[in-house]
Amino acid sequence: MWYNEFGKDGDVVLSSRVRLARNLDGVPFPLAANEKQQEEVLDKCRGALLDKGDNTLEELDLKFIDLSKMEDYEKQAIAECHLISPQMINNDKRRGLILSGDSRVSIMINEEDHLRIQCMEPGFEIDKCFDTANKIDDHIEESLDYAFDKDFGYLTCCPTNAGTGLRASVMVHLPGYVLTGKFNELAASLSQLGLTVRGIFGEGSKGLGNIFQISNQLTLGVLEEDITERLNQIVSEVVSNERELRRLLYKNDKYKLEDRIMRSYGILKNAVIMSSDEAMKRLSDIRLGVSLEIIKDIKYETLNEITYSILPANIIKNYNTANEFSRDLKRGEIIKERMC
Amino acid sequence: MWYNEFGKDGDVVLSSRVRLARNLDGVPFPLAANEKQQEEVLDKCRGALLDKGDNTLEELDLKFIDLSKMEDYEKQAIAECHLISPQMINNDKRRGLILSGDSRVSIMINEEDHLRIQCMEPGFEIDKCFDTANKIDDHIEESLDYAFDKDFGYLTCCPTNAGTGLRASVMVHLPGYVLTGKFNELAASLSQLGLTVRGIFGEGSKGLGNIFQISNQLTLGVLEEDITERLNQIVSEVVSNERELRRLLYKNDKYKLEDRIMRSYGILKNAVIMSSDEAMKRLSDIRLGVSLEIIKDIKYETLNEITYSILPANIIKNYNTANEFSRDLKRGEIIKERMC
Repeated sequence: MWYNEFGKDGDVVLSSRVRLARNLDGVPFPLAANEKQQEEVLDKCRGALLDKGDNTLEELDLKFIDLSKMEDYEKQAIAECHLISPQMINNDKRRGLILSGDSRVSIMINEEDHLRIQCMEPGFEIDKCFDTANKIDDHIEESLDYAFDKDFGYLTCCPTNAGTGLRASVMVHLPGYVLTGKFNELAASLSQLGLTVRGIFGEGSKGLGNIFQISNQLTLGVLEEDITERLNQIVSEVVSNERELRRLLYKNDKYKLEDRIMRSYGILKNAVIMSSDEAMKRLSDIRLGVSLEIIKDIKYETLNEITYSILPANIIKNYNTANEFSRDLKRGEIIKERMC
Repeated sequence: MWYNEFGKDGDVVLSSRVRLARNLDGVPFPLAANEKQQEEVLDKCRGALLDKGDNTLEELDLKFIDLSKMEDYEKQAIAECHLISPQMINNDKRRGLILSGDSRVSIMINEEDHLRIQCMEPGFEIDKCFDTANKIDDHIEESLDYAFDKDFGYLTCCPTNAGTGLRASVMVHLPGYVLTGKFNELAASLSQLGLTVRGIFGEGSKGLGNIFQISNQLTLGVLEEDITERLNQIVSEVVSNERELRRLLYKNDKYKLEDRIMRSYGILKNAVIMSSDEAMKRLSDIRLGVSLEIIKDIKYETLNEITYSILPANIIKNYNTANEFSRDLKRGEIIKERMC
């Protein structure tokens, strides 16, 4: 899976993502399209992306995934890994998913827009994501016409995505900001700079595990390169501030911080029942401990892998657990096994 | 130290103790005695116990400890190990302590009474304690006259000790009673049976680490053997009930109990800051875990040793710590080291 690796600035930036929203010219948006039109979009996009011959995307090893043949919990599981949006779980439209062999590229068909091209990378790699997304975008445009307006740019179902159709984001771990009480200040200033801050799983998950998504708010009236450059600049600053805050925290309250981190370590390595929320909270402590070299026997990659493998639907999918309690037991097992 | 061993029924009974209160005939009780009289008592008792020759107590390897030459924290430390009563810490009288080589026998001179003969054993060994105490008592009586009334029996400073002057007690670990909510019921019925229940360090420490002292209330109007036999009988019942309650607890709520125990295990093995109260609470979980074979790599002896070595004055004495915070740090270290 794409998130199992340790990327650039991986002590703070877990992953980067770029998403382009596109729609085909002359076909209603998925919400308004009838089944036949949805089917047409699905076929056209599959053709443009997967047809052999002169396919510049061959190296991505793209494959079509038939979501209609998957159980809800299986779709929930890949949504937890950010491969599809939660909206894609419903089977009320002819939806499609095209996934790259390394799962870094996922292209949703008939989500809110006809096409959502999403590229993810571990670490701080917005440019790399943007390059891959552009490449896919260009390839599609060779065979299909996009809905495009010379004044507005790309047209999208929701006007907040119109223009560039570009949403770039990073997933960052900010225990330094949170534990020093400086997070709200950061969120406010990011907002003033035109960026949005959300939790790891969107709006409702704010603060869970001290992991946050930072993304651009504006898509209209700006150049694509300006969006990514601006995000790169601001996130670079957040990264170095976060590192400084962690050092400060450790310097000012060494034993208390070590105690907090080592208790979480001991609990994760021994607890029998582990809820998802508690796991996220304690894994945040471990991640901080690894970055401050308080914990030396655990790698970031292991933490990244654990973080996703213990999410509810992933546990259901992999272990066929019957209820929340058996998931909490299994979660405890998984963590103990991986942390050994 | 006497408590570092694992004795009979040591899964429930940490230790047993018998104490005889005695006073010399014709000398005022220590409270009323002047310094010269206190000195006289001290000399007489030392002589009776330590003079060579036909001394039947030779095997006990008794030695006089000069409390007046000890710092308060040193006296506090031996009080924590139950070798002296807290009252003995004050230097306001000519007090003395005679201790056996294995620290199982401690004889206080000029405490509340002229003589407090105390015998301790690890595990459930009231009879053994009583035999040793009797032997010492008999030996003293060979050379000294006790204050004795043919109606009242032995006379003591506080009337609650008069008669036999005998207090027999066991230190028991009762997590089964406490966690199933049956402890208050037990305490009430023990009280009806003429027994007193207190915490590990007397009145103020009730419930700390689920460790309790059970002792006889009455000393007057009963035979010494009746006191010890009765205590033996009742404690035997408490021991088997406690074991049954632990099994029941484990059977009814297996995972929750394992989780509680393993979390305490993980925390004790990793925490950096550890208060005395938290340590007692978590050690109780470990002790329960060992008895249910949930924890297999720790011995009762280790737990017994840890329990006493992490008490505040013991830490001050052994590590010369300056304040409460440095003691909490040292306590964390000691536990981690011993539990490895």
